[in-house]
Amino acid sequence: MNILEIIAKKRDNAKLSKEEIDYFIENYTKGEITDYQAAALVMAIYINGMDYEETTNFTLAMAKSGEILDLSDLGFVVDKHSTGGIGDKITMVLMPIVAALGIPAAKMSGRGLGFTGGTIDKLESIPGYNTSISVEKFKNNVKNIGISIMGQTLNLAPADKKLYALRDTISCVGSIPLIASSIMSKKIAAGADKIVLEVTVGSGAFMKNLDEAKELSETMINIGKQAGKQSICVLTNMNEPMGYSVGNSLEVIETIEALSGKMEEDIKKVVLELGSYMIKLAGKGDDIEANKKMILEIIESGEALNKFRQLVENQGGDVSYIDDVSKFESAKYIIPVLADKAGYVASMDNEKIGYISCSLGAGRIRKEDEINNRVGLIIKKKIGDKVDVGDVLGYIHADDEEVGSRAAKSLVECYNYSEEFVEKQKQILGVLE
Amino acid sequence: MNILEIIAKKRDNAKLSKEEIDYFIENYTKGEITDYQAAALVMAIYINGMDYEETTNFTLAMAKSGEILDLSDLGFVVDKHSTGGIGDKITMVLMPIVAALGIPAAKMSGRGLGFTGGTIDKLESIPGYNTSISVEKFKNNVKNIGISIMGQTLNLAPADKKLYALRDTISCVGSIPLIASSIMSKKIAAGADKIVLEVTVGSGAFMKNLDEAKELSETMINIGKQAGKQSICVLTNMNEPMGYSVGNSLEVIETIEALSGKMEEDIKKVVLELGSYMIKLAGKGDDIEANKKMILEIIESGEALNKFRQLVENQGGDVSYIDDVSKFESAKYIIPVLADKAGYVASMDNEKIGYISCSLGAGRIRKEDEINNRVGLIIKKKIGDKVDVGDVLGYIHADDEEVGSRAAKSLVECYNYSEEFVEKQKQILGVLE
Repeated sequence: MNILEIIAKKRDNAKLSKEEIDYFIENYTKGEITDYQAAALVMAIYINGMDYEETTNFTLAMAKSGEILDLSDLGFVVDKHSTGGIGDKITMVLMPIVAALGIPAAKMSGRGLGFTGGTIDKLESIPGYNTSISVEKFKNNVKNIGISIMGQTLNLAPADKKLYALRDTISCVGSIPLIASSIMSKKIAAGADKIVLEVTVGSGAFMKNLDEAKELSETMINIGKQAGKQSICVLTNMNEPMGYSVGNSLEVIETIEALSGKMEEDIKKVVLELGSYMIKLAGKGDDIEANKKMILEIIESGEALNKFRQLVENQGGDVSYIDDVSKFESAKYIIPVLADKAGYVASMDNEKIGYISCSLGAGRIRKEDEINNRVGLIIKKKIGDKVDVGDVLGYIHADDEEVGSRAAKSLVECYNYSEEFVEKQKQILGVLE
Repeated sequence: MNILEIIAKKRDNAKLSKEEIDYFIENYTKGEITDYQAAALVMAIYINGMDYEETTNFTLAMAKSGEILDLSDLGFVVDKHSTGGIGDKITMVLMPIVAALGIPAAKMSGRGLGFTGGTIDKLESIPGYNTSISVEKFKNNVKNIGISIMGQTLNLAPADKKLYALRDTISCVGSIPLIASSIMSKKIAAGADKIVLEVTVGSGAFMKNLDEAKELSETMINIGKQAGKQSICVLTNMNEPMGYSVGNSLEVIETIEALSGKMEEDIKKVVLELGSYMIKLAGKGDDIEANKKMILEIIESGEALNKFRQLVENQGGDVSYIDDVSKFESAKYIIPVLADKAGYVASMDNEKIGYISCSLGAGRIRKEDEINNRVGLIIKKKIGDKVDVGDVLGYIHADDEEVGSRAAKSLVECYNYSEEFVEKQKQILGVLE
């Protein structure tokens, strides 16, 4: 077996064996297969595809390329993953809810890159919150209070890390088998038994249309099946930001409000759907409608917010910020953004909103970029809203006036209007299991 | 314009513009586009192809990536190129013939790599023959005596050199547009006005079947048309070695014999065909049969051999070796190879014969391998010959007894027999213009 034969096989649209895939992943991780050989193979995979068996083998090979987190002593762990979006604070809202319902919430989260944000960056805007605790402490937290959210400090799926960086430089990001195996390899390495996957669809997501999203979902569900990790995909709308805030501390504030019961309608829909399927996968209830009721009740009781407070306290965060969100430091400039046209909001360039947030300093374009927790956007008008000229579309939170006013101008351009009535966006586009 | 967009376009099977191809070749040559990005693009080209216009633009971009040899002061230059084979000494036989007929023979030749040999290595087995003369001396030689054959000392088509080395490591050698543009870029950079291309087909060639060879030929002819370099392809058989010798000084000896009139039938057929079309392209006669007669006459007159002698003398070679071929140093061991079966020779593993020659030291597997001029093979039985057990199939010329006897064993395995009568191989498989 050698890399030339493996490349030639996929080049000619033949199926790669488990041994060939293992050989490639192992030797590429070790650096014995070069980046240009990997690039040629990845391009051949992008064009000619991989079937479910190949994709599963690819996933498992990447999962075992580094450390694998063993969570078996925590009992049955249901993980949650999102393919990312703008203003997506679902993890921060949802995990305390399921933990309050007695389901172990052991979550390793990522940082933001490109136009989407990352849970770890958001949590770090709470002063003191430590996202790089030891794995032992992580597990102990889950044992003691039922929840911990930390960064990926372990060397999980290094092959995926290397391949992901490569794909980015050779125009091979958008391949369903490669995206599916990338996500699932990290989930498997992170020790999940079962997985609820939020597959975001729309202008602010990697999957721009429903067909692609369904294909990705089916691929991931199939990998899960073959890998013995039951998975359910909830397809959610990402044509507009999730909730009303984009930016790190702004999203933490919205999270706290949501857990206090003041939850935006779109967040509520997604939290109820994902949460109900997590409860189902955890074996705590097969009736989705009953599960939704359980979730609403645990929020109303205050236990969900209390669980979030416990989470923050347990990881060194200053809980006085949870009790009084006005303590979060504000950005220097808060610039209202006014509508230049009238009509019903027909569509929003959500990806652009993500990039505006980055331009303010809330996200990273390159890995080495630093994050500013204070800055971001508040969105006041979304698809279906009626707007008059001069209405406030939202607010830019900026630390630099010039950057802020450029961002305000850009946000105006993200809105498209219709004279006719426009329906509000549907939040849940489907569930695949 | 950036490389990510260019890769994505070819990945999605779209057509690349001239500007995009120029951008890629220029920046890859400069090292500003990485090997892994080039690898991804090359794989996309391999799988999705390039049309004639793209292939021509690719060729011209590579041709102008380095120096371009200006031969305009020599008048009208017809170049000859072969896609390579085993025992292919056609350049050494043919160029003195056309020079003797008054057609300027200015040829930059390559070295051997892999299972095929190179003209420059062969000529260097003549003591004193200098293949790395200056371009000025090269041109003066052509002006004075009508012929010069030298190595590629100029930085011709460096983009092709870089891409060829890359293709070799990513299983992307066998792509018609890439092979065609590689050959034609070097020919254009080497200053040819018109080109006769020998496209070899069979077990000892890169093109294993006639359909591929025709496709390659049509592609090269089309590039020639669009680049204003009229080209003719002669498809020749490479299912068995050309002539009776394989190895450097052994092939020079056969060349001298051929130019003296003792020419193997297969060599004669190829020389007459290629030579006649070179005469035609040079504007010295449109009647191919009449041209063949001219060639036979110039050989019979002794002028062709004399031209070869002049070529050698002019480049510092010891002509006493031409006058008395027994002066060429022989290998230490000459091992007869005996048939282990009886029958008509039905086929030969010609590529394997090339590798046997390399194993003896006559060729290079890696670029840095040294060449031994003395060693090689003499082939006594070819396809269609009747063989009895114990008949001499050929001789191994080796400097190491053990290596030689291994080679002898391997040569026996290159022969396949039939009990039925087998026709001799047809040498010329077609002419495309």
